[in-house]
Amino acid sequence: MNFPPETLFLDDAHSALVILDQSLLPGEVKYIPLTTLEQVYDAIKELKVRGAPAIGVAAAMGIYIHMKRYVQSNRPEVGGFLTELERAGVYLSLSRPTAVNLRWALREMSEAVRNQKAKNASELVHILHSCCEQIKDKDIETNKRIGEHGAALIKPDMGILTHCNAGALATTGYGTALAPIYYAHERGVRLRVYADETRPVLQGARLTAFELQRAGVDVTLICDNMAATVMANGWVDAVFVGCDRVAANGDTANKIGTHGVAILAKRFNIPFYVCAPFSTIDRDTSTGADIVIEERDPAEITDLWYTKPMAPLGVKVFNPSFDVTPGELITAFITEKGMINAPF
Amino acid sequence: MNFPPETLFLDDAHSALVILDQSLLPGEVKYIPLTTLEQVYDAIKELKVRGAPAIGVAAAMGIYIHMKRYVQSNRPEVGGFLTELERAGVYLSLSRPTAVNLRWALREMSEAVRNQKAKNASELVHILHSCCEQIKDKDIETNKRIGEHGAALIKPDMGILTHCNAGALATTGYGTALAPIYYAHERGVRLRVYADETRPVLQGARLTAFELQRAGVDVTLICDNMAATVMANGWVDAVFVGCDRVAANGDTANKIGTHGVAILAKRFNIPFYVCAPFSTIDRDTSTGADIVIEERDPAEITDLWYTKPMAPLGVKVFNPSFDVTPGELITAFITEKGMINAPF
Repeated sequence: MNFPPETLFLDDAHSALVILDQSLLPGEVKYIPLTTLEQVYDAIKELKVRGAPAIGVAAAMGIYIHMKRYVQSNRPEVGGFLTELERAGVYLSLSRPTAVNLRWALREMSEAVRNQKAKNASELVHILHSCCEQIKDKDIETNKRIGEHGAALIKPDMGILTHCNAGALATTGYGTALAPIYYAHERGVRLRVYADETRPVLQGARLTAFELQRAGVDVTLICDNMAATVMANGWVDAVFVGCDRVAANGDTANKIGTHGVAILAKRFNIPFYVCAPFSTIDRDTSTGADIVIEERDPAEITDLWYTKPMAPLGVKVFNPSFDVTPGELITAFITEKGMINAPF
Repeated sequence: MNFPPETLFLDDAHSALVILDQSLLPGEVKYIPLTTLEQVYDAIKELKVRGAPAIGVAAAMGIYIHMKRYVQSNRPEVGGFLTELERAGVYLSLSRPTAVNLRWALREMSEAVRNQKAKNASELVHILHSCCEQIKDKDIETNKRIGEHGAALIKPDMGILTHCNAGALATTGYGTALAPIYYAHERGVRLRVYADETRPVLQGARLTAFELQRAGVDVTLICDNMAATVMANGWVDAVFVGCDRVAANGDTANKIGTHGVAILAKRFNIPFYVCAPFSTIDRDTSTGADIVIEERDPAEITDLWYTKPMAPLGVKVFNPSFDVTPGELITAFITEKGMINAPF
């Protein structure tokens, strides 16, 4: 596997979206082809492809593949094409409710064809193809710029803590929160990364530690509840995290546990940076209170990873997938347009 | 299994210390007899018996069993008895370095025989028997008093968050941090408990959720990184935790993650109570910086519970078993003598 790892790509010859199945990492590096809308929905829902930017690209490419096959099978008129596109977009948007990139990408796809005076559905399929490739190219370019802006903050021998995976695997490029780390590393800046394992799905242990280790970055895996200790020990100079949606006032939804890390960083006077494409800022959401927080299956906590019962049968479980970090706890947002601050 | 569960007991007829193997909970309720010092050492080291007060009682009873068998086999003079007792005590004290109760209990056992003008080793064995039973009785009584003092703080419909397991399974009675909850529950006070799962060994999921569920207490299991969310949601009115050692200035060593919970509680203006026997206060340790923090096997984080690889092979891991919560973050210590505050 090269660096950055190829998170997903189009196999146009077979009308398939091919994704690296992240639910199998780090034990198995396996690519799977997705050819139906339902497969794309399930892959997003089951976290086979995850990370707000990667989900956006996957959804756009999934729509393209679906509409290409739809046109081949059904030969619809433009009106029928647009109706199916609408239905497919609504369906995919329900796969995960919190990330704004998913909806943004679906809207881009929809608008790309609505503004065209196409003579037939096949032309619209071509337009969708260009649009989804552009979304991917834009993601790669955005990662690069976030990386450059963020790398400017990294001094030699710094310790950086990150939560969840906002790395290459969460995007189609260098990542968001990890992009500054990769850029600094490529320039020979020595640094240490502390990766929260990120329960319950362990994206930090399975994905962040995996991709940083492969890239040769000095990474130490910790349990989420050890973050206060590494900070108290003076090992952490900055926190970099990604995010799924930013409200107009700066309140930021990201993987569950981010809010706690931000409070700890404040306590230890450690700057806390949120790295995200500008499109993650959702001006239509005024505060974090308006962000829908996805709750996931209790089995993710009690059963998913275990060889023996790890919690009593039938115990009540609360399993929110995200939390909202108040804007006041965020030192700055690092976007492709540079460092910015709320309100937006 | 009755309530409270019997964590450990002497089977004097078979010269054995019998413990509930907590490494198998909640899947299997199995008692195992320990007849050698090495078995007691391993059971403590491998967390088959854990929780500062329970470790103290187990060590005391382990010493008794060992010395009883030693006298039967070796028929030593008083001098030889005392030498072996000393050696056995030093050995057991190394099983886990952080908890003070372990050393306290071993010292009690040692002093019980040193202050005697015994005619022979058999008499000393009888004294050790009485002493270790007294340590257990004292633990039960201490739990009761902590429970009564703490229950006075619990109002109807309160939400209480706890970290790790400082319950019945961590003691030989009602527990320390959970004792107030059990007393309030027995009096019919309706309350909700949020149990942090407590990575990496999952004492919260496996033990706290287990014993609270069996006692009919309303308990909800969360991942450690969800504590900020349940607090931000207004669901938590107080935090109760146990502890392994308290320094003279109030700095408190407890299961890794406690420090972070205390910082979160401060942020949300939630009182943070440490429940502990008075003997946990170690006036010989001036601040938390002087407390040795045990570091454990990285495999506890990367491999122990998993059916497939959950972290990349060879990844660096930091696995401290405890952390130190600064005294300033602790609202009060709830001991058998009532609520007290640092410095001591």
